Amino acid sequence: MFYLIGLGLGDATDITVKGLRALERCSRVYLEAYTSVLTVGKEALEEFYGRELIVADRELVEQQADRILEDARETDVAFLVVGDPFGATTHSDLILRAVQAGVPYKVVHNASIINAVGVCGLQQPLYTFGETVSLVFWTDTWRPESFYDKICKNREAGLHTLCLLDIKVKEQSEENMMRGRKIYEPPRFMTVAQAADQLMQIVQRRRGEGEELGLTEDTLCVGVARLGADNQAIRVATLQQLVSCDLGGPLHSLMVTGQLHPLEVDMLQLSAETSLLQSLQVLDGSTYWS
Amino acid sequence: MFYLIGLGLGDATDITVKGLRALERCSRVYLEAYTSVLTVGKEALEEFYGRELIVADRELVEQQADRILEDARETDVAFLVVGDPFGATTHSDLILRAVQAGVPYKVVHNASIINAVGVCGLQQPLYTFGETVSLVFWTDTWRPESFYDKICKNREAGLHTLCLLDIKVKEQSEENMMRGRKIYEPPRFMTVAQAADQLMQIVQRRRGEGEELGLTEDTLCVGVARLGADNQAIRVATLQQLVSCDLGGPLHSLMVTGQLHPLEVDMLQLSAETSLLQSLQVLDGSTYWS
Repeated sequence: MFYLIGLGLGDATDITVKGLRALERCSRVYLEAYTSVLTVGKEALEEFYGRELIVADRELVEQQADRILEDARETDVAFLVVGDPFGATTHSDLILRAVQAGVPYKVVHNASIINAVGVCGLQQPLYTFGETVSLVFWTDTWRPESFYDKICKNREAGLHTLCLLDIKVKEQSEENMMRGRKIYEPPRFMTVAQAADQLMQIVQRRRGEGEELGLTEDTLCVGVARLGADNQAIRVATLQQLVSCDLGGPLHSLMVTGQLHPLEVDMLQLSAETSLLQSLQVLDGSTYWS
Repeated sequence: MFYLIGLGLGDATDITVKGLRALERCSRVYLEAYTSVLTVGKEALEEFYGRELIVADRELVEQQADRILEDARETDVAFLVVGDPFGATTHSDLILRAVQAGVPYKVVHNASIINAVGVCGLQQPLYTFGETVSLVFWTDTWRPESFYDKICKNREAGLHTLCLLDIKVKEQSEENMMRGRKIYEPPRFMTVAQAADQLMQIVQRRRGEGEELGLTEDTLCVGVARLGADNQAIRVATLQQLVSCDLGGPLHSLMVTGQLHPLEVDMLQLSAETSLLQSLQVLDGSTYWS
Protein backbone atom coordinates (compact mmCIF):
# COMPACT_ATOMS: atom_id res chain seq x y z
CA MET A 1 0.00 0.00 0.00
CA PHE A 2 1.18 3.53 -0.83
CA TYR A 3 0.08 6.05 1.83
CA LEU A 4 -0.06 9.78 1.12
CA ILE A 5 -0.25 11.30 4.59
CA GLY A 6 -0.91 14.95 5.43
CA LEU A 7 1.03 16.30 8.44
CA GLY A 8 -1.16 19.36 8.97
CA LEU A 9 0.25 22.70 10.07
CA GLY A 10 2.31 23.43 13.17
CA ASP A 11 4.40 20.69 14.75
CA ALA A 12 4.87 16.91 15.01
CA THR A 13 1.65 16.39 17.03
CA ASP A 14 -0.54 17.76 14.22
CA ILE A 15 -0.50 14.38 12.46
CA THR A 16 -3.78 12.47 12.77
CA VAL A 17 -4.02 9.23 14.75
CA LYS A 18 -4.93 7.49 11.47
CA GLY A 19 -1.83 8.91 9.80
CA LEU A 20 0.45 7.95 12.68
CA ARG A 21 -0.87 4.38 12.75
CA ALA A 22 -0.36 3.99 8.99
CA LEU A 23 3.15 5.42 9.18
CA GLU A 24 4.12 2.96 11.90
CA ARG A 25 3.29 0.04 9.59
CA CYS A 26 5.48 1.28 6.73
CA SER A 27 8.85 -0.07 5.69
CA ARG A 28 9.95 3.27 4.20
CA VAL A 29 8.74 6.77 5.08
CA TYR A 30 9.46 9.75 2.80
CA LEU A 31 9.13 13.39 3.86
CA GLU A 32 8.27 15.82 1.06
CA ALA A 33 10.50 18.79 1.77
CA TYR A 34 10.29 21.32 -1.03
CA THR A 35 6.77 22.80 -1.16
CA SER A 36 6.24 23.57 2.54
CA VAL A 37 7.79 23.20 6.01
CA LEU A 38 6.60 22.77 9.57
CA THR A 39 7.87 24.89 12.45
CA VAL A 40 9.90 21.89 13.61
CA GLY A 41 12.63 20.11 11.69
CA LYS A 42 13.04 16.55 10.42
CA GLU A 43 14.72 15.41 13.65
CA ALA A 44 11.75 16.45 15.82
CA LEU A 45 9.39 14.57 13.49
CA GLU A 46 11.59 11.46 13.57
CA GLU A 47 11.65 11.50 17.34
CA PHE A 48 7.88 11.89 17.70
CA TYR A 49 6.98 9.40 14.95
CA GLY A 50 9.65 6.95 16.13
CA ARG A 51 10.75 6.45 12.53
CA GLU A 52 13.63 7.45 10.30
CA LEU A 53 12.49 9.77 7.49
CA ILE A 54 13.91 9.90 3.98
CA VAL A 55 13.91 13.49 2.70
CA ALA A 56 12.24 13.69 -0.72
CA ASP A 57 13.40 16.71 -2.67
CA ARG A 58 11.90 17.90 -5.96
CA GLU A 59 14.34 15.88 -8.04
CA LEU A 60 13.50 12.61 -6.31
CA VAL A 61 9.72 13.15 -6.56
CA GLU A 62 9.60 14.45 -10.11
CA GLN A 63 12.32 12.40 -11.74
CA GLN A 64 12.71 9.25 -9.67
CA ALA A 65 9.17 8.61 -8.47
CA ASP A 66 9.59 4.92 -9.33
CA ARG A 67 12.14 4.61 -6.54
CA ILE A 68 9.52 5.86 -4.05
CA LEU A 69 6.91 3.39 -5.29
CA GLU A 70 9.36 0.49 -5.58
CA ASP A 71 8.02 -2.68 -3.89
CA ALA A 72 4.94 -0.78 -2.53
CA ARG A 73 2.80 -3.63 -3.86
CA GLU A 74 4.37 -6.02 -1.35
CA THR A 75 5.11 -3.67 1.52
CA ASP A 76 3.74 -0.37 2.92
CA VAL A 77 5.38 2.91 1.93
CA ALA A 78 4.42 6.35 3.23
CA PHE A 79 4.90 9.76 1.65
CA LEU A 80 4.44 12.61 4.16
CA VAL A 81 3.30 16.04 3.01
CA VAL A 82 3.05 19.20 5.15
CA GLY A 83 -0.58 20.35 5.21
CA ASP A 84 -2.94 18.16 3.16
CA PRO A 85 -1.71 15.92 0.28
CA PHE A 86 -4.25 17.76 -1.90
CA GLY A 87 -4.00 21.21 -0.37
CA ALA A 88 -1.89 23.94 -1.89
CA THR A 89 0.21 21.46 -3.86
CA THR A 90 -1.21 18.27 -5.22
CA HIS A 91 0.61 15.06 -5.67
CA SER A 92 -1.65 13.68 -8.40
CA ASP A 93 1.34 12.59 -10.40
CA LEU A 94 2.46 10.14 -7.70
CA ILE A 95 -1.05 8.67 -7.54
CA LEU A 96 -1.23 8.22 -11.30
CA ARG A 97 2.14 6.45 -11.25
CA ALA A 98 0.95 4.22 -8.41
CA VAL A 99 -2.19 3.27 -10.33
CA GLN A 100 -0.17 2.55 -13.48
CA ALA A 101 2.18 0.34 -11.47
CA GLY A 102 -0.76 -1.51 -9.91
CA VAL A 103 0.05 -0.17 -6.42
CA PRO A 104 -3.02 0.46 -4.23
CA TYR A 105 -3.00 3.83 -2.43
CA LYS A 106 -4.70 5.59 0.45
CA VAL A 107 -4.82 9.28 1.31
CA VAL A 108 -4.87 10.51 4.92
CA HIS A 109 -6.12 14.09 4.95
CA ASN A 110 -5.16 16.91 7.28
CA ALA A 111 -5.47 20.68 7.69
CA SER A 112 -3.98 22.95 5.04
CA ILE A 113 -3.58 26.70 4.81
CA ILE A 114 -6.95 27.14 3.10
CA ASN A 115 -9.10 26.22 6.11
CA ALA A 116 -6.68 27.54 8.70
CA VAL A 117 -6.86 31.07 7.30
CA GLY A 118 -10.32 31.34 8.85
CA VAL A 119 -8.68 31.67 12.24
CA CYS A 120 -7.52 35.20 11.40
CA GLY A 121 -11.12 36.37 11.34
CA LEU A 122 -12.10 36.33 7.69
CA GLN A 123 -15.32 34.40 7.76
CA GLN A 124 -16.14 31.21 5.92
CA PRO A 125 -13.05 30.81 3.74
CA LEU A 126 -15.07 28.77 1.30
CA TYR A 127 -17.61 31.45 0.57
CA THR A 128 -15.80 34.74 0.82
CA PHE A 129 -12.48 33.91 -0.82
CA GLY A 130 -11.95 34.14 -4.56
CA GLU A 131 -9.25 32.42 -6.57
CA THR A 132 -5.99 31.90 -4.66
CA VAL A 133 -2.81 33.43 -6.07
CA SER A 134 0.92 32.74 -5.70
CA LEU A 135 3.61 35.37 -5.31
CA VAL A 136 7.07 34.40 -6.54
CA PHE A 137 10.42 35.97 -5.72
CA TRP A 138 11.13 38.55 -8.41
CA THR A 139 14.48 38.48 -10.19
CA ASP A 140 16.22 41.24 -12.12
CA THR A 141 14.66 40.02 -15.33
CA TRP A 142 11.42 38.35 -14.23
CA ARG A 143 8.85 40.47 -12.40
CA PRO A 144 5.41 38.94 -13.06
CA GLU A 145 2.37 40.99 -11.98
CA SER A 146 -0.56 38.76 -12.94
CA PHE A 147 -1.39 38.01 -9.28
CA TYR A 148 -2.14 41.73 -8.78
CA ASP A 149 -4.85 41.62 -11.45
CA LYS A 150 -6.37 38.46 -9.97
CA ILE A 151 -6.54 40.09 -6.52
CA CYS A 152 -8.30 43.12 -8.04
CA LYS A 153 -10.75 40.84 -9.84
CA ASN A 154 -11.58 39.09 -6.55
CA ARG A 155 -12.01 42.45 -4.80
CA GLU A 156 -14.36 43.65 -7.53
CA ALA A 157 -16.54 40.63 -6.74
CA GLY A 158 -16.30 41.45 -3.00
CA LEU A 159 -14.05 38.45 -2.33
CA HIS A 160 -10.92 38.11 -0.23
CA THR A 161 -7.70 36.68 -1.72
CA LEU A 162 -5.31 34.21 -0.15
CA CYS A 163 -1.76 34.84 -1.40
CA LEU A 164 0.63 31.92 -1.04
CA LEU A 165 4.23 33.10 -0.77
CA ASP A 166 7.21 31.64 -2.56
CA ILE A 167 9.51 28.97 -1.11
CA LYS A 168 12.95 28.25 -2.52
CA VAL A 169 14.48 25.07 -1.19
CA LYS A 170 17.54 23.35 -2.65
CA GLU A 171 17.75 25.83 -5.54
CA GLN A 172 20.92 26.22 -7.58
CA SER A 173 22.35 29.58 -8.63
CA GLU A 174 22.29 30.16 -12.39
CA GLU A 175 26.04 29.76 -12.52
CA ASN A 176 26.11 26.50 -10.56
CA MET A 177 23.27 25.14 -12.69
CA MET A 178 25.06 25.98 -15.94
CA ARG A 179 28.26 24.42 -14.72
CA GLY A 180 26.37 21.37 -13.49
CA ARG A 181 27.60 21.83 -9.94
CA LYS A 182 25.29 20.33 -7.32
CA ILE A 183 25.76 23.25 -4.93
CA TYR A 184 22.55 24.59 -3.44
CA GLU A 185 21.60 28.04 -2.13
CA PRO A 186 20.31 28.38 1.45
CA PRO A 187 16.49 27.99 1.63
CA ARG A 188 14.45 31.19 1.26
CA PHE A 189 10.86 31.78 2.39
CA MET A 190 9.05 34.93 1.27
CA THR A 191 7.89 37.03 4.21
CA VAL A 192 4.68 39.03 4.49
CA ALA A 193 6.81 42.19 4.41
CA GLN A 194 8.48 41.12 1.13
CA ALA A 195 5.11 40.25 -0.41
CA ALA A 196 3.63 43.60 0.66
CA ASP A 197 6.66 45.36 -0.79
CA GLN A 198 6.19 43.67 -4.21
CA LEU A 199 2.52 44.69 -4.22
CA MET A 200 3.44 48.27 -3.25
CA GLN A 201 5.90 48.44 -6.16
CA ILE A 202 3.15 47.39 -8.55
CA VAL A 203 0.76 49.98 -7.05
CA GLN A 204 3.35 52.74 -7.51
CA ARG A 205 4.32 51.74 -11.05
CA ARG A 206 0.71 51.51 -12.21
CA ARG A 207 -0.30 54.75 -10.51
CA GLY A 208 2.55 56.42 -12.39
CA GLU A 209 0.97 55.18 -15.59
CA GLY A 210 -2.38 56.68 -14.58
CA GLU A 211 -4.10 53.33 -14.10
CA GLU A 212 -7.22 53.07 -11.91
CA LEU A 213 -6.23 50.87 -8.97
CA GLY A 214 -8.28 48.06 -7.46
CA LEU A 215 -5.78 47.57 -4.64
CA THR A 216 -3.80 50.41 -3.02
CA GLU A 217 -1.46 51.09 -0.08
CA ASP A 218 -4.56 51.64 2.11
CA THR A 219 -6.20 48.30 1.37
CA LEU A 220 -6.79 46.23 4.49
CA CYS A 221 -4.64 43.08 4.57
CA VAL A 222 -3.90 40.28 7.00
CA GLY A 223 -0.43 38.82 7.37
CA VAL A 224 -0.15 35.42 9.01
CA ALA A 225 2.82 33.29 10.07
CA ARG A 226 3.15 29.73 11.35
CA LEU A 227 -0.64 29.14 11.44
CA GLY A 228 -1.56 26.24 13.70
CA ALA A 229 1.64 26.47 15.76
CA ASP A 230 1.74 27.76 19.32
CA ASN A 231 3.65 30.83 18.19
CA GLN A 232 1.42 31.70 15.23
CA ALA A 233 1.28 35.41 14.38
CA ILE A 234 -1.56 37.40 12.83
CA ARG A 235 -1.23 41.05 11.83
CA VAL A 236 -4.16 43.08 10.52
CA ALA A 237 -2.99 46.29 8.84
CA THR A 238 -2.96 48.27 5.62
CA LEU A 239 -0.78 47.02 2.78
CA GLN A 240 1.65 49.88 3.41
CA GLN A 241 1.95 49.09 7.12
CA LEU A 242 2.75 45.45 6.37
CA VAL A 243 5.85 46.42 4.38
CA SER A 244 7.65 47.07 7.68
CA CYS A 245 6.19 44.22 9.75
CA ASP A 246 8.27 41.37 11.17
CA LEU A 247 6.26 38.21 11.76
CA GLY A 248 9.25 35.99 12.51
CA GLY A 249 10.15 32.61 10.97
CA PRO A 250 8.40 30.79 8.09
CA LEU A 251 5.84 30.04 6.70
CA HIS A 252 4.09 33.30 5.95
CA SER A 253 0.90 33.95 3.98
CA LEU A 254 -0.92 37.15 3.07
CA MET A 255 -4.64 37.81 2.74
CA VAL A 256 -6.02 40.80 0.89
CA THR A 257 -9.56 41.61 2.03
CA GLY A 258 -12.57 42.20 -0.19
CA GLN A 259 -15.93 43.17 1.24
CA LEU A 260 -16.13 42.77 5.02
CA HIS A 261 -19.03 41.33 6.98
CA PRO A 262 -19.67 42.94 10.41
CA LEU A 263 -18.71 39.70 12.19
CA GLU A 264 -15.42 39.67 10.24
CA VAL A 265 -14.76 43.22 11.40
CA ASP A 266 -15.26 42.10 15.00
CA MET A 267 -12.86 39.19 14.53
CA LEU A 268 -10.22 41.27 12.73
CA GLN A 269 -10.16 43.75 15.58
CA LEU A 270 -8.74 41.03 17.82
CA SER A 271 -5.51 41.19 15.81
CA ALA A 272 -5.65 44.71 14.37
CA GLU A 273 -3.00 47.41 14.68
CA THR A 274 -4.25 49.92 17.25
CA SER A 275 -4.36 52.63 14.64
CA LEU A 276 -6.87 50.62 12.67
CA LEU A 277 -9.29 50.01 15.48
CA GLN A 278 -11.24 53.21 15.12
CA SER A 279 -11.57 52.99 11.37
CA LEU A 280 -12.60 49.34 11.62
CA GLN A 281 -15.38 50.20 14.02
CA VAL A 282 -17.11 52.47 11.52
CA LEU A 283 -17.01 49.89 8.74
CA ASP A 284 -20.19 48.06 7.97
CA GLY A 285 -20.89 45.02 5.85
CA SER A 286 -21.95 46.97 2.79
CA THR A 287 -18.72 48.94 2.59
CA TYR A 288 -15.38 48.10 1.08
CA TRP A 289 -12.37 48.93 3.15
CA SER A 290 -10.29 51.51 1.17
CA MET B 1 -8.68 27.30 28.20
CA PHE B 2 -11.35 26.91 25.53
CA TYR B 3 -10.29 24.48 22.78
CA LEU B 4 -11.92 24.46 19.36
CA ILE B 5 -10.86 21.10 17.92
CA GLY B 6 -11.38 19.90 14.35
CA LEU B 7 -12.19 16.18 13.98
CA GLY B 8 -11.36 15.97 10.28
CA LEU B 9 -13.33 13.80 7.88
CA GLY B 10 -13.94 10.09 8.12
CA ASP B 11 -13.91 8.36 11.51
CA ALA B 12 -12.73 8.67 15.12
CA THR B 13 -9.04 8.18 14.22
CA ASP B 14 -8.99 11.29 12.02
CA ILE B 15 -8.48 13.51 15.08
CA THR B 16 -4.91 14.86 15.41
CA VAL B 17 -2.63 13.78 18.23
CA LYS B 18 -2.61 17.42 19.40
CA GLY B 19 -6.42 17.48 19.45
CA LEU B 20 -6.67 14.17 21.30
CA ARG B 21 -4.18 15.29 23.96
CA ALA B 22 -6.06 18.57 24.50
CA LEU B 23 -9.41 16.78 24.73
CA GLU B 24 -8.07 14.41 27.39
CA ARG B 25 -7.25 17.38 29.64
CA CYS B 26 -10.76 18.88 29.45
CA SER B 27 -13.44 18.78 32.13
CA ARG B 28 -16.26 19.05 29.55
CA VAL B 29 -16.24 18.06 25.88
CA TYR B 30 -18.96 19.28 23.49
CA LEU B 31 -19.65 17.75 20.07
CA GLU B 32 -21.09 20.16 17.48
CA ALA B 33 -23.74 18.08 15.77
CA TYR B 34 -25.73 20.21 13.36
CA THR B 35 -23.49 21.41 10.52
CA SER B 36 -21.78 18.12 9.62
CA VAL B 37 -21.43 14.47 10.62
CA LEU B 38 -18.75 11.78 10.53
CA THR B 39 -19.37 8.29 9.18
CA VAL B 40 -19.36 7.04 12.77
CA GLY B 41 -21.75 8.07 15.55
CA LYS B 42 -21.23 9.72 18.94
CA GLU B 43 -20.77 6.37 20.71
CA ALA B 44 -17.83 5.36 18.51
CA LEU B 45 -16.19 8.73 19.17
CA GLU B 46 -16.74 8.40 22.94
CA GLU B 47 -15.18 4.96 22.93
CA PHE B 48 -12.10 6.02 20.99
CA TYR B 49 -11.58 9.32 22.82
CA GLY B 50 -12.33 7.69 26.16
CA ARG B 51 -14.58 10.61 27.08
CA GLU B 52 -18.27 11.33 27.41
CA LEU B 53 -19.43 13.86 24.81
CA ILE B 54 -22.16 16.48 25.27
CA VAL B 55 -24.08 16.94 22.03
CA ALA B 56 -24.27 20.63 21.10
CA ASP B 57 -27.23 21.38 18.86
CA ARG B 58 -27.88 24.69 17.11
CA GLU B 59 -29.98 26.03 19.98
CA LEU B 60 -27.28 25.41 22.59
CA VAL B 61 -24.52 26.97 20.46
CA GLU B 62 -26.44 29.98 19.21
CA GLN B 63 -28.58 30.80 22.23
CA GLN B 64 -26.78 29.39 25.24
CA ALA B 65 -23.13 29.76 24.32
CA ASP B 66 -22.41 31.09 27.82
CA ARG B 67 -23.18 27.64 29.21
CA ILE B 68 -20.46 26.17 26.98
CA LEU B 69 -17.90 28.77 28.07
CA GLU B 70 -18.89 28.65 31.75
CA ASP B 71 -15.86 28.24 34.04
CA ALA B 72 -13.51 27.84 31.03
CA ARG B 73 -11.22 30.38 32.67
CA GLU B 74 -10.49 28.00 35.53
CA THR B 75 -10.77 24.66 33.73
CA ASP B 76 -10.33 23.30 30.18
CA VAL B 77 -13.36 22.93 27.90
CA ALA B 78 -13.35 21.47 24.39
CA PHE B 79 -15.74 22.06 21.51
CA LEU B 80 -15.38 19.45 18.75
CA VAL B 81 -16.27 20.26 15.15
CA VAL B 82 -16.36 17.84 12.21
CA GLY B 83 -13.82 18.97 9.61
CA ASP B 84 -11.94 22.14 10.57
CA PRO B 85 -13.32 24.69 13.08
CA PHE B 86 -12.89 27.28 10.32
CA GLY B 87 -13.76 25.15 7.32
CA ALA B 88 -17.20 25.20 5.76
CA THR B 89 -18.80 26.65 8.87
CA THR B 90 -16.97 29.01 11.15
CA HIS B 91 -17.43 29.32 14.84
CA SER B 92 -16.20 32.90 15.08
CA ASP B 93 -19.10 33.78 17.34
CA LEU B 94 -17.91 31.38 20.07
CA ILE B 95 -14.41 32.86 19.87
CA LEU B 96 -15.70 36.42 20.17
CA ARG B 97 -17.74 35.43 23.22
CA ALA B 98 -14.70 33.73 24.74
CA VAL B 99 -12.58 36.86 24.23
CA GLN B 100 -15.31 39.07 25.73
CA ALA B 101 -15.51 36.77 28.74
CA GLY B 102 -11.74 36.83 29.17
CA VAL B 103 -11.41 33.12 28.34
CA PRO B 104 -8.21 32.20 26.47
CA TYR B 105 -8.74 29.93 23.45
CA LYS B 106 -6.81 27.64 21.14
CA VAL B 107 -7.77 26.21 17.76
CA VAL B 108 -6.65 22.73 16.65
CA HIS B 109 -7.00 22.51 12.88
CA ASN B 110 -7.88 19.51 10.76
CA ALA B 111 -8.90 18.54 7.22
CA SER B 112 -12.12 19.92 5.80
CA ILE B 113 -13.98 19.25 2.57
CA ILE B 114 -12.13 22.01 0.71
CA ASN B 115 -8.74 20.30 0.64
CA ALA B 116 -10.11 16.78 0.50
CA VAL B 117 -11.92 17.44 -2.78
CA GLY B 118 -8.55 17.34 -4.49
CA VAL B 119 -8.54 13.57 -4.06
CA CYS B 120 -11.21 13.21 -6.77
CA GLY B 121 -8.73 14.42 -9.35
CA LEU B 122 -9.50 18.10 -9.79
CA GLN B 123 -6.09 19.63 -9.44
CA GLN B 124 -4.98 22.22 -6.94
CA PRO B 125 -8.29 23.06 -5.26
CA LEU B 126 -6.90 26.43 -4.27
CA TYR B 127 -6.18 27.57 -7.79
CA THR B 128 -8.80 26.04 -10.00
CA PHE B 129 -11.92 26.39 -7.84
CA GLY B 130 -14.04 29.53 -7.85
CA GLU B 131 -16.46 30.64 -5.15
CA THR B 132 -18.09 27.75 -3.27
CA VAL B 133 -21.89 27.50 -3.30
CA SER B 134 -24.51 25.88 -1.06
CA LEU B 135 -27.56 23.98 -2.27
CA VAL B 136 -30.55 23.95 0.09
CA PHE B 137 -33.52 21.61 0.09
CA TRP B 138 -36.25 23.28 -1.97
CA THR B 139 -39.72 23.62 -0.47
CA ASP B 140 -43.04 24.16 -2.25
CA THR B 141 -42.68 27.90 -1.84
CA TRP B 142 -38.91 28.47 -1.73
CA ARG B 143 -36.84 27.41 -4.71
CA PRO B 144 -33.72 29.60 -4.82
CA GLU B 145 -31.56 29.41 -7.96
CA SER B 146 -28.74 31.84 -7.21
CA PHE B 147 -26.21 28.99 -6.85
CA TYR B 148 -26.80 28.11 -10.54
CA ASP B 149 -25.68 31.59 -11.62
CA LYS B 150 -22.60 31.42 -9.41
CA ILE B 151 -21.59 28.07 -10.93
CA CYS B 152 -21.99 29.54 -14.43
CA LYS B 153 -19.87 32.54 -13.44
CA ASN B 154 -17.11 30.22 -12.19
CA ARG B 155 -17.31 28.16 -15.39
CA GLU B 156 -17.01 31.30 -17.53
CA ALA B 157 -13.73 32.00 -15.72
CA GLY B 158 -12.64 28.38 -16.33
CA LEU B 159 -13.02 27.48 -12.64
CA HIS B 160 -14.56 24.43 -10.95
CA THR B 161 -17.26 24.82 -8.30
CA LEU B 162 -17.61 22.96 -5.02
CA CYS B 163 -21.29 22.62 -4.08
CA LEU B 164 -21.97 21.94 -0.41
CA LEU B 165 -25.24 20.09 0.08
CA ASP B 166 -27.91 20.83 2.67
CA ILE B 167 -28.12 19.15 6.08
CA LYS B 168 -31.26 19.25 8.19
CA VAL B 169 -30.70 18.05 11.73
CA LYS B 170 -33.18 18.52 14.57
CA GLU B 171 -35.55 20.57 12.40
CA GLN B 172 -39.17 21.10 13.39
CA SER B 173 -42.08 20.84 10.95
CA GLU B 174 -43.87 24.14 10.37
CA GLU B 175 -46.85 22.88 12.33
CA ASN B 176 -44.79 21.73 15.32
CA MET B 177 -42.87 24.99 15.31
CA MET B 178 -46.09 27.08 15.30
CA ARG B 179 -47.55 25.02 18.09
CA GLY B 180 -44.32 25.25 20.06
CA ARG B 181 -43.95 21.47 20.18
CA LYS B 182 -40.35 20.30 20.57
CA ILE B 183 -40.83 17.40 18.17
CA TYR B 184 -38.07 17.05 15.60
CA GLU B 185 -38.05 15.59 12.09
CA PRO B 186 -35.61 12.78 11.26
CA PRO B 187 -32.28 14.17 9.98
CA ARG B 188 -31.98 14.68 6.22
CA PHE B 189 -28.81 14.92 4.15
CA MET B 190 -29.02 16.05 0.52
CA THR B 191 -27.61 13.43 -1.86
CA VAL B 192 -25.63 14.02 -5.04
CA ALA B 193 -28.64 12.67 -6.98
CA GLN B 194 -30.99 15.19 -5.34
CA ALA B 195 -28.58 18.05 -6.00
CA ALA B 196 -28.18 17.01 -9.65
CA ASP B 197 -31.96 16.82 -9.95
CA GLN B 198 -32.40 20.40 -8.69
CA LEU B 199 -29.80 21.63 -11.17
CA MET B 200 -31.51 19.71 -14.00
CA GLN B 201 -34.84 21.36 -13.13
CA ILE B 202 -33.21 24.78 -13.38
CA VAL B 203 -31.61 23.85 -16.73
CA GLN B 204 -34.96 22.74 -18.12
CA ARG B 205 -36.89 25.76 -16.83
CA ARG B 206 -34.36 28.23 -18.19
CA ARG B 207 -34.03 26.47 -21.53
CA GLY B 208 -37.82 26.76 -21.82
CA GLU B 209 -37.42 30.49 -21.44
CA GLY B 210 -34.83 30.58 -24.21
CA GLU B 211 -31.92 31.44 -21.93
CA GLU B 212 -28.34 30.71 -23.00
CA LEU B 213 -27.06 28.09 -20.56
CA GLY B 214 -23.64 28.05 -18.88
CA LEU B 215 -24.29 24.64 -17.36
CA THR B 216 -26.30 21.87 -19.05
CA GLU B 217 -27.21 18.19 -18.62
CA ASP B 218 -23.96 17.29 -20.42
CA THR B 219 -21.65 19.23 -18.12
CA LEU B 220 -19.03 17.03 -16.48
CA CYS B 221 -19.54 16.73 -12.72
CA VAL B 222 -18.02 14.80 -9.84
CA GLY B 223 -20.14 13.42 -7.03
CA VAL B 224 -18.34 12.48 -3.81
CA ALA B 225 -19.51 10.81 -0.61
CA ARG B 226 -17.84 10.21 2.77
CA LEU B 227 -14.49 11.68 1.67
CA GLY B 228 -11.66 10.55 3.91
CA ALA B 229 -13.48 7.43 5.10
CA ASP B 230 -12.52 3.92 4.02
CA ASN B 231 -15.75 3.62 2.04
CA GLN B 232 -15.53 6.97 0.27
CA ALA B 233 -17.21 7.08 -3.14
CA ILE B 234 -16.32 9.19 -6.18
CA ARG B 235 -18.42 9.26 -9.36
CA VAL B 236 -17.38 11.17 -12.47
CA ALA B 237 -20.30 11.62 -14.86
CA THR B 238 -22.46 14.14 -16.66
CA LEU B 239 -24.99 16.12 -14.63
CA GLN B 240 -27.80 14.07 -16.15
CA GLN B 241 -26.14 10.75 -15.27
CA LEU B 242 -25.73 11.82 -11.66
CA VAL B 243 -29.50 12.24 -11.22
CA SER B 244 -29.79 8.47 -10.99
CA CYS B 245 -26.60 7.68 -9.04
CA ASP B 246 -26.61 6.17 -5.56
CA LEU B 247 -23.49 7.00 -3.56
CA GLY B 248 -24.76 5.61 -0.25
CA GLY B 249 -24.85 7.30 3.16
CA PRO B 250 -23.95 10.92 4.05
CA LEU B 251 -22.16 13.31 3.60
CA HIS B 252 -22.32 14.03 -0.11
CA SER B 253 -20.82 16.91 -2.08
CA LEU B 254 -20.93 17.81 -5.75
CA MET B 255 -18.30 19.40 -7.95
CA VAL B 256 -19.11 21.03 -11.27
CA THR B 257 -16.05 21.20 -13.50
CA GLY B 258 -14.77 24.26 -15.37
CA GLN B 259 -11.78 24.05 -17.66
CA LEU B 260 -9.85 20.78 -17.37
CA HIS B 261 -6.09 20.41 -17.31
CA PRO B 262 -4.70 17.25 -19.00
CA LEU B 263 -3.47 15.92 -15.63
CA GLU B 264 -6.99 16.41 -14.21
CA VAL B 265 -8.42 14.42 -17.12
CA ASP B 266 -6.01 11.58 -16.29
CA MET B 267 -7.06 11.64 -12.63
CA LEU B 268 -10.80 11.84 -13.40
CA GLN B 269 -10.51 8.76 -15.59
CA LEU B 270 -9.70 6.73 -12.47
CA SER B 271 -13.29 7.27 -11.28
CA ALA B 272 -15.15 7.92 -14.55
CA GLU B 273 -18.23 6.10 -15.82
CA THR B 274 -17.15 3.72 -18.62
CA SER B 275 -19.28 5.58 -21.13
CA LEU B 276 -17.30 8.74 -20.45
CA LEU B 277 -13.83 7.27 -20.75
CA GLN B 278 -13.45 7.68 -24.48
CA SER B 279 -14.71 11.24 -24.48
CA LEU B 280 -12.38 12.12 -21.62
CA GLN B 281 -9.44 10.71 -23.52
CA VAL B 282 -9.89 13.14 -26.40
CA LEU B 283 -10.27 16.16 -24.11
CA ASP B 284 -7.36 18.52 -23.91
CA GLY B 285 -6.53 21.25 -21.46
CA SER B 286 -7.65 24.10 -23.67
CA THR B 287 -11.17 22.74 -24.09
CA TYR B 288 -14.23 23.02 -21.90
CA TRP B 289 -16.14 19.86 -21.36
CA SER B 290 -19.65 20.38 -22.81
